[in-house]
Amino acid sequence: MEKFIEMVKDSKVCMLITNEKNGENLSGRPMSISKIDDDGGMWFFTKSSSYKVEEIEESKKVSIAIANESSNNYLMINGTGNLVNDKIKMKELWSSILKAWFPLGLDDPDMILIKVTPNEVNYWDSSSSTMVVLFNMLKAIVTGKVYEEGEHGKINL
Amino acid sequence: MEKFIEMVKDSKVCMLITNEKNGENLSGRPMSISKIDDDGGMWFFTKSSSYKVEEIEESKKVSIAIANESSNNYLMINGTGNLVNDKIKMKELWSSILKAWFPLGLDDPDMILIKVTPNEVNYWDSSSSTMVVLFNMLKAIVTGKVYEEGEHGKINL
Repeated sequence: MEKFIEMVKDSKVCMLITNEKNGENLSGRPMSISKIDDDGGMWFFTKSSSYKVEEIEESKKVSIAIANESSNNYLMINGTGNLVNDKIKMKELWSSILKAWFPLGLDDPDMILIKVTPNEVNYWDSSSSTMVVLFNMLKAIVTGKVYEEGEHGKINL
Repeated sequence: MEKFIEMVKDSKVCMLITNEKNGENLSGRPMSISKIDDDGGMWFFTKSSSYKVEEIEESKKVSIAIANESSNNYLMINGTGNLVNDKIKMKELWSSILKAWFPLGLDDPDMILIKVTPNEVNYWDSSSSTMVVLFNMLKAIVTGKVYEEGEHGKINL
């Protein structure tokens, strides 16, 4: 879990992937990760009026892809997305960088948080030049099994 | 199209996203892009015995996520994945780096190509610090419409 959190912290930006409302296609966009909690919960600021909010209202199934070539961090996260309209939490997570999206700051009425709770995390080892899956976090801890060549089992958080 | 190809070429690695065979979850792994054709077709080497090959046999619907923080290139591509077992094509695309995965080289019997034909490409402008969608390639060309704040229409290639 620590390794996962550390890798996410290395990457400021991820692709947040939702299901289009037609249920047919995936919809993804770069999103800045505001915070990752100690239990792996990931927080994002967004506009309440955005398509992704509508998509999450329709399907809470979201994924996060991180492919950070410079830090060599690769993660694929499946999880549940929840919309959190909590001004106290927004204040806690606020950073001045967010003014680029929300010039009104915390008073912006068109602001909501997305919290992604991961239920499956796959990550690839950063020190391996051949990009082998060294392990799948919890599964590896439980079974001691090593996966090879980007092929791997599933873990459940 | 040129801009899209250029951005893909900037990124050696992407997350190739397939549908798990249960049809419920997404499965993603970092993959090295061997080549992008002038028409946007993207080529990958993989092992015939890998899960992703089974997944593509079950569902040709694949996505590619590129989130390259260092070059500030962000792309989300939906497309069709096809398995191509063509030794001549493999020879054309072969690079010595691939020996890390295929020590036997082109003689490796457990080798197949995946060709992803994009049908929808979204990309984000690299020069915008606020990560605004400047346009959605073809749609923008056709309609001249500018999309804002990561929210955008769809394009079909």
